[in-house]
Amino acid sequence: MTKYVYMFNEGNKDMKELLGGKGANLAEMTKLGLPVPSGFTVSTEACLKYYDNNQELPQEIIDEILDKYKSLESITGKRIGDDVNPLLVSVRSGARASMPGMMDTILNLGLNDEVAKSFALNINNERFVYDNYRRLIQMYADVVKGFPKSSFEKKFDEIKEQKGVKLDTELSSLDLKEIVNIYKDEYLRLAGEEFPQDANVQLIEAVKAVFRSWNNERAVTYRNLNNIPSNWGTAVNIQEMVYGNMGETSGTGVAFTRNPATGENKLYGEYLMNAQGEDVVAGIRTPQSIETLKEVSPKCYQEFLDISKTLENHYRDMQDMEFTIENDKLYILQTRSGKRTAEAALQIVVDLVNEGMISKEEALLRIEPKQLDSLLHPTFDEESLKNATPIAKGLAASPGAACGKIYFTASDINMAYQSGEKDLILVRLETSPEDIEGMNLAHGVLTVRGGMTSHAAVVARGMGTCCVSGCSEIIVNEVEKTLTTKDGKVFHEGDYLSLNGSDGLVYGEKINTKDAVISGNFETFMSWADEVRSLGIRVNADTPKDAVYARSLGAEGIGLCRTEHMFFDSVRLFNFRRMITANSLEKREEALMNILPYQREDFEGLFRAMDGYSVNVRLLDPPLHEFLPHTDEDIRELAESLSMDFDSLKDRVDSIREFNPMMGHRGCRLDVTYPEIAVMQTRAIIEALINVTKEGIKSEVEIMIPLVGDVNEMKYVKNIIVKTAEEIIKTSGVDVKYLVGCMIEVPRAIVIADKLAMESSFFSFGTNDLTQLSYGFSRDDAGKFLKDYYSKGIFVNDPFAKIDQEGIGTFMKMGVELGRRVNPNLKIGICGEHAGETSSIEFCNSIGLNYVSCSPYRIPLARLAAAQASIREKANK
Amino acid sequence: MTKYVYMFNEGNKDMKELLGGKGANLAEMTKLGLPVPSGFTVSTEACLKYYDNNQELPQEIIDEILDKYKSLESITGKRIGDDVNPLLVSVRSGARASMPGMMDTILNLGLNDEVAKSFALNINNERFVYDNYRRLIQMYADVVKGFPKSSFEKKFDEIKEQKGVKLDTELSSLDLKEIVNIYKDEYLRLAGEEFPQDANVQLIEAVKAVFRSWNNERAVTYRNLNNIPSNWGTAVNIQEMVYGNMGETSGTGVAFTRNPATGENKLYGEYLMNAQGEDVVAGIRTPQSIETLKEVSPKCYQEFLDISKTLENHYRDMQDMEFTIENDKLYILQTRSGKRTAEAALQIVVDLVNEGMISKEEALLRIEPKQLDSLLHPTFDEESLKNATPIAKGLAASPGAACGKIYFTASDINMAYQSGEKDLILVRLETSPEDIEGMNLAHGVLTVRGGMTSHAAVVARGMGTCCVSGCSEIIVNEVEKTLTTKDGKVFHEGDYLSLNGSDGLVYGEKINTKDAVISGNFETFMSWADEVRSLGIRVNADTPKDAVYARSLGAEGIGLCRTEHMFFDSVRLFNFRRMITANSLEKREEALMNILPYQREDFEGLFRAMDGYSVNVRLLDPPLHEFLPHTDEDIRELAESLSMDFDSLKDRVDSIREFNPMMGHRGCRLDVTYPEIAVMQTRAIIEALINVTKEGIKSEVEIMIPLVGDVNEMKYVKNIIVKTAEEIIKTSGVDVKYLVGCMIEVPRAIVIADKLAMESSFFSFGTNDLTQLSYGFSRDDAGKFLKDYYSKGIFVNDPFAKIDQEGIGTFMKMGVELGRRVNPNLKIGICGEHAGETSSIEFCNSIGLNYVSCSPYRIPLARLAAAQASIREKANK
Repeated sequence: MTKYVYMFNEGNKDMKELLGGKGANLAEMTKLGLPVPSGFTVSTEACLKYYDNNQELPQEIIDEILDKYKSLESITGKRIGDDVNPLLVSVRSGARASMPGMMDTILNLGLNDEVAKSFALNINNERFVYDNYRRLIQMYADVVKGFPKSSFEKKFDEIKEQKGVKLDTELSSLDLKEIVNIYKDEYLRLAGEEFPQDANVQLIEAVKAVFRSWNNERAVTYRNLNNIPSNWGTAVNIQEMVYGNMGETSGTGVAFTRNPATGENKLYGEYLMNAQGEDVVAGIRTPQSIETLKEVSPKCYQEFLDISKTLENHYRDMQDMEFTIENDKLYILQTRSGKRTAEAALQIVVDLVNEGMISKEEALLRIEPKQLDSLLHPTFDEESLKNATPIAKGLAASPGAACGKIYFTASDINMAYQSGEKDLILVRLETSPEDIEGMNLAHGVLTVRGGMTSHAAVVARGMGTCCVSGCSEIIVNEVEKTLTTKDGKVFHEGDYLSLNGSDGLVYGEKINTKDAVISGNFETFMSWADEVRSLGIRVNADTPKDAVYARSLGAEGIGLCRTEHMFFDSVRLFNFRRMITANSLEKREEALMNILPYQREDFEGLFRAMDGYSVNVRLLDPPLHEFLPHTDEDIRELAESLSMDFDSLKDRVDSIREFNPMMGHRGCRLDVTYPEIAVMQTRAIIEALINVTKEGIKSEVEIMIPLVGDVNEMKYVKNIIVKTAEEIIKTSGVDVKYLVGCMIEVPRAIVIADKLAMESSFFSFGTNDLTQLSYGFSRDDAGKFLKDYYSKGIFVNDPFAKIDQEGIGTFMKMGVELGRRVNPNLKIGICGEHAGETSSIEFCNSIGLNYVSCSPYRIPLARLAAAQASIREKANK
Repeated sequence: MTKYVYMFNEGNKDMKELLGGKGANLAEMTKLGLPVPSGFTVSTEACLKYYDNNQELPQEIIDEILDKYKSLESITGKRIGDDVNPLLVSVRSGARASMPGMMDTILNLGLNDEVAKSFALNINNERFVYDNYRRLIQMYADVVKGFPKSSFEKKFDEIKEQKGVKLDTELSSLDLKEIVNIYKDEYLRLAGEEFPQDANVQLIEAVKAVFRSWNNERAVTYRNLNNIPSNWGTAVNIQEMVYGNMGETSGTGVAFTRNPATGENKLYGEYLMNAQGEDVVAGIRTPQSIETLKEVSPKCYQEFLDISKTLENHYRDMQDMEFTIENDKLYILQTRSGKRTAEAALQIVVDLVNEGMISKEEALLRIEPKQLDSLLHPTFDEESLKNATPIAKGLAASPGAACGKIYFTASDINMAYQSGEKDLILVRLETSPEDIEGMNLAHGVLTVRGGMTSHAAVVARGMGTCCVSGCSEIIVNEVEKTLTTKDGKVFHEGDYLSLNGSDGLVYGEKINTKDAVISGNFETFMSWADEVRSLGIRVNADTPKDAVYARSLGAEGIGLCRTEHMFFDSVRLFNFRRMITANSLEKREEALMNILPYQREDFEGLFRAMDGYSVNVRLLDPPLHEFLPHTDEDIRELAESLSMDFDSLKDRVDSIREFNPMMGHRGCRLDVTYPEIAVMQTRAIIEALINVTKEGIKSEVEIMIPLVGDVNEMKYVKNIIVKTAEEIIKTSGVDVKYLVGCMIEVPRAIVIADKLAMESSFFSFGTNDLTQLSYGFSRDDAGKFLKDYYSKGIFVNDPFAKIDQEGIGTFMKMGVELGRRVNPNLKIGICGEHAGETSSIEFCNSIGLNYVSCSPYRIPLARLAAAQASIREKANK
C-alpha cells in the first residue's frame, strides 16, 4: 500500500517531490534537532490521487491522515478536542516549487465551542482563545467554503464601530465571544449548516481545500507563467500550533541569514512581540529590526542566530526563515533558500566561495542567468516609484525602465531630439522599420499592438531599449497624437510617461530612473563563467556603437550584423528606395554606389570594435516592401523626391506588396534577382576589411547568405561574393581572410545540410524563421491563437522564446550532423532570438554548436548559461 | 583519344546520347541495310567539348571531321570539290530529344563557283545546280553568319519582279546564275568577306553553327519548358545530298506508318515529285497523298511500303519517316517515333498489343500520362479554329477550350446564368474564394494576375474548368467592365471570347468547342493500367457531382473533401459569416447549427457516390478572413444583413486580417479556438454516414485534421471528434466506422510523425503547404522571383508542379518511415496538387504510399502513371 502521510521525522530535504518544499525542509529541520513544532505532511501523491479520484479523497488517505493526527497526541502531550490541553494545528500548502496564488494558511484547527470554553478557562485567557476561534471560522469559511472574506470582515467592523473602538486589540474578551457567535451565525447563513465542531472534519476539509486550490485560477496562471507542470500536485503540512501572541514573552518574525537586497553577511529580518504572523505583514504595528531582539530576549536571539548559522551551513545558501516565540521558547516554522536581488545574489555567491562554503562551479549554478538581466537595464528609483500608480499594463517586451516625453511618430522624436530633448518615449500603434531611428533615440517604446516578438519588441530588445508592447488597454490616435487610458485620461505629445519594460507597467507621470552599475562581484562572477564554458558568445550588432558596448559586456565577435538596419538612416534610405524603384540595372547600381561608402564605414567600425574576433555580416534579408512607404501621402512625397510620377511609384509599391511577405521575395532571393546588391555589399565588406587590416586590425569576416533552401542558391550567390571579393583583394594587394556561409533557417536547408556544408565555411541557425516555417505560423499572427494553446495545455512554452527541442531542436541536430559529416570543421552558431535564452543555450551547447549570438544585453546571461551548460554536461558524463 | 565522329555504320539506335536521335536512327537504318545516303555524325561530346573550349572547336575534332568527310569520297564514289562528280552534303542538327528551335538544315555544302560551273555542265542542268547554289548561300548566310533571311529574299523577289515572273520555277537558269552573283555580292557586303569557296571551311563553319544554335534563345526556352538539361548538347549529321528535284522521276515526302491523328493501321503521308523537302512544307504546291505514289512510281512505292513495315517492326512503334526519290531511286533520310494525338496513341498501342507486337506493359509505358489530359477536356473545333487569331497569351493554367460571353464579376456570371445564358467566361484581375460560384458556372476563367498555382488556376483545375491565368498582356477594368488588348481593342460585358487553357491562347471571337468522348480503346487501356498498378487512386472532390463524375473516371474513393468549399453557397456563406463574426459561443453555435443540415446532405451525397470506398473529409482549413468581405461597401452590406453596425464589423474584419495568412489562424488552429466548428463538422459527417448506412451504402469515412504540427493539437481535436462521434453513434444504434487522422503538411509534423502516428489511423501528405513551408516561399508570391531561378539555372523544375524529391521528398520518406515504425497499418496518401503529376506519382509509389488523390480530370493520368511506376519498379528489382 502506498504511504501518503509522513511524520516530519520520516522525511528529509531531498524529498521535495513528495513532501513539497516546505514539508521537506520541516522534516530536515526536525532531523537536525531544531525546535520545529511537531507535525506531518500529506504527500503530493495524495493530491494526484485526489484528482484521479474525481476530486474525492480516498478513504485510505483520510484514515492515514487521521491516524497521524492521532499520533501527534502522544508526541505533543496534547489531545484532540481535549478541554484542558487541546491539540490545535495549522494547515499549510507546500508544492515542490514556491507557488504564490495557492491557498493561505488555516490556523487553530481543532477549536470548537466546547474546547474554546474549557481551554480558555484552563489557560485563563478567554480573549486569546476566542480571538483564535474567530480567526479559525473566518479562514475556514474563506478557504474551505469559498465564502467571501468581506462578509466576516464587515461584521467585525460593525462590532468595532458598535463598541466604539478602532484597534482589534481594544476589543474585550466578551466582544470576541460575541463575534464568534456572530461568525457562526453568518457561517450557518452562508453554508446552510453549522460550523463543524469535529476536529477531524475540520482537518480533512482543510486538506481537500488545499488540494482544490492547486487548480484555482491564480495557481494555474502562475504555473503557466512559470512553466510548472500541473501534474506535480501540492503537499499539505499539518503542524502543532505555537503562538506568538500569548503575551509579552511571545512573538513572531521572519529573517534572512544574509541581507537579501545587498548580500551583506549579517542576519537581516524583523519581528513583533505578542503577535501572530499575519500581524507582521499587516503593517498596523511596525515590526522591529531583528537586532533589537538581542535586548528583548537575549536567549532566543542567540538561539536563533545559532540556528540561522546552522541552517545556512547545512543548506550552503542564504536562508529565509520564519520563527515564533511562545512564552520565551523559540520555534522555527519554515526555512528555505531566500529570494534575493541580483546584486545580493552575486555578493552572496562570491562570499560563499571566499568562505570556502561552495565551489566556483556551485556558485555559477546558484544564479539564474535571467536574474542578470536586472543588472543591465536602467531601473526606476525606488523612492520615486513608491507613490506611482500604473495607468495601464502591456507586455514586458524589452526590459528596463524609461521615463520621458511622449511623441507619436519617429520623425517627431527626431525633431524633439534635435531640439535638445533627450528624455523621449515613442508611442505607436505598432512600429515598422521606418521607426527604427526614432526607437534608437527614444528611451522607451510603447505600442498598442504586437506581441513579445513583434517588430517593436524584437528591435527594442536588440537595441536594449525599454519596450512595453501590446498594451491594448490604451487607445492611441496617431493623427490626433493622443493616448487615452481606459479611464478616459488623455495624454498629449510632450506629456510625461514612464514605462517598465520588465513588468509591462505604464505610469502616467515622471519617475526617475537610475543607470545600471556593473559591480566588482559581477565581473568576478563572469570571469568564473568564462573559465568553464566552452560555447563562444557573440553579439548581434548592427552598429559600431553596439559592437563596442557588446565587447565591454564580453562579446567574442559578432554573430549577426543585419545589414538592412544600416539602411534606415535617411540618406541611405533614400538611395535604397531609389535602388528598389529603379527600372534599370544602371540606375540600381548608381543608387547602390551611393550607399557603398556608408556601409563600408560601418563595417570598418565593426571590425575595429571586434579586433581579433570574427564579424559575421548577413547580406540584405527583409522583403523590399519594408523599405517603401505605404500611405498615398508618403508615396506622393517619395515620388517627388525621386522625381517619379505618383502613379508609377504607386504601381511599383503595389507590385512589391506580397500576400505572405514572410515567405516572399527576401533573403538570398533578392541577390538572385538583383546580383548587384550582393556585389555592392561584398565590395563594402571587403574594402572595409582591407582598410582596417592596413591599420593593424586583425578581424576575420564571415559573409552570410540568408534564407538558403537550395544548394544552387548558395552556389549562385557565393559565386558573386567570391568573384567580387577576389578581384578587390587582388587589386589591393592586401591579404585578408573572408569566409562564406549560410543561414540555416528554411526547413529544406536541414535536409540538404550536407550539400550546403560542402559550399559553406559556417552555418548559423536562424531559429526565428526556422521555428515559424517548421510550425507554419508567423510570429506576427500566432499571438492571437497561441493564447488558446497555452490555456488548453497544448503548448507549455512559447516556441519563439525557448527552442522547441522536440521539433526545431531535432531539425537543428540533423543539420549539425549532416553538415559536420562532410565538413568536420564547419563553424556552427545560432543567431535567432533564442540565443539569449537559458534553456536554449544549454541545448545549443549539447548539440555541439560553436557559439551563440545574442543581443548585447543578453551577453552576460549567455555567458553564465553557457557556463552552467558546461558544468551540467560534465556532471552528467 | 576520344572518338568524336562516327560513320553511320559505326552506330546504332541505342546511341542516342552520343549521336542524337537522328544520328542514332540513321546509323540503325544503315545497319539494317536500308537505302540511307552515306554520312557521319559529330557526337554530342564534341558539342560539349566546343563549349568547354570557349566556343572554339578543338583542332583534333576538326581533323576528325575532315578525315571522315574525306572518307565519304570512297564510299560514295564522289569527290570533294570535284568538277564532274562533286560530293555535296547536308548538315543537320540532332539532339538526344527532338528539339524544335535549333538550327535548320544547310543543304548543298561543297558547292562553289568552280564546282557549280563544271558540275552544271556535266549533268547538263544549269538551272538545278545554280538553284542549289543560291540556296546554299542563303542558308549559310542565315545559319552560319546570322544574316537576316529577308535580305536575300528581297533580292530574289526583286529579280522575279524584274523578270516579270511569279513562281520560282519560272526563272531561267540565267536568272538563277544572276541571282547567285547577287547573293554573293550581298554576302560580301554583309560579311565583309567573300562567300567561302573551300568545302572544308563551309563544313566546319556549319558544324560550329549547329553547336552555337544549341544555346540560342529559342532552344534555351524550349529546353526550360521541357526540362531538357543544357548539358546534353547536340550532335551534327553530315550526309551525302540526294535530290528530289532532279526531274519528274525524283521527289520527296514524309509519311507515318500509321495515321497519327486516328491511329489507323495504314500508311499515311504525302509527297511531291520534282521537289525538295522545303517545298512540301512551303505550301505553294499541294502535296499528293502517299497512296498516289503507287501509280507514279510503283517500284518506289512498294519499296517504301516494305521499308515502313520493316521500320515499324524493328522499332515496334509507329514511325515518322522522310524519304527522297532521286531519279527513281528511293532514299530514307530519317525515321523516328511519330508524334500522334492521344486518340491515335491509344489506337496504336491497342492494335500493337492485339498484333502481338508489344505486351500490355509495353503499351502502358508507351503513352505519356499527360497525353491523356487532352482526352478529357473540351477542345476547339479544328474547322472553327482554323481562321482564328489569338489576341493575347497567358498561362495554360487549366486545360480545355472554352467559349462564351464575358462577365467581370462572379455575381454578373450568376445573373447571366439565371437569365438563361450558359456559355459564360469569367474575366477577373485575379480570383478569390468569393468567385468560386461564378467559376463553377463559367466555362472558362481568364485572369490578369496569378501564376500556375494562383487561386484561379488551382480552383479551375480542381473543377476541370478551362483557365488562362496571368494574362498580363491585357488590361482589365473591373469597374468599367472592359477588357483591352495590347492593340487597344476593347471588349465589353457580353462580348464573346474563346480561351484555350491547354496553350494559354485567348481569342477575341466565338470558336466552337467539342466535348470529350471516352472511346473504347481508352477504357481497354485503362483497364490494363488498373491490372498492374498497386497505388490506389482517389479524387479530391467537394461535391457529390464531382464525386460521381470522378468515380466514372475510375476514382477509388475520395482523398480530400475540402469542407470549406461547401460554405460558398450564399445561404451557407451567410451563416458561416455569422459564425465568424459572432461574439459569443451561443451565437456561433446557432450559426453553425444552420449550416449543419447542408453539410450533412453534401456528405450523404459523397458517401453515396463512393459506395464501397473511403471518403476522406478534412475539417475546415483556410483562414477565416477568406470568408469575409474586404471592401467597405461589401462590409456595409454584410453588416446590414447581419444586423451589426458597420464599425464593429469592420473592426472584426480588420482583427481577422493577418500579416501572413498562409501562416496564420487556420487548419486545426481554428478548432482549438472554436471547438464548436469541429463538433458541428463531426456531427454532420457521422449523421450523414449513419443515414446512408441505413440505406445500405457501405462507405467508410476518414476525418482528417489539417495543419497539425504538434501531437497535442492532434490529441485535442481528435478528442473532440471522438467524443462527438461516439455519442451520436451510441444514440443512433447504427454501427458505422470512422477513422481519425491528420494532414502532414507542416515541416514539424515530419519530425514527430511517430508521435502523430500513434494517434492517427492515416496520414495524408499536403505537399502544397509542405513545399511552401519547407522552402519558405508562398505560392502566391514565388512566381515573381522564381522566373529568375529558372533563367539562372537555380531551379530546373517548378516545385509546386513536381515533388521536389531531394528536399520535400526526403521529408516525406522520413514521415512514412517514422509513422509506419510505430503504426505499421498506417494508411498514407497524398492530396496535394502533385498527386496529379507523373513523376510525383512515381515517387509516391516508390516510398510506399497507399494512394494518391488528385482532381477528377487527373484520374486517368494518375491511373496510368501509377501503372507505369509499378512496371518500372518491377523492372528495377
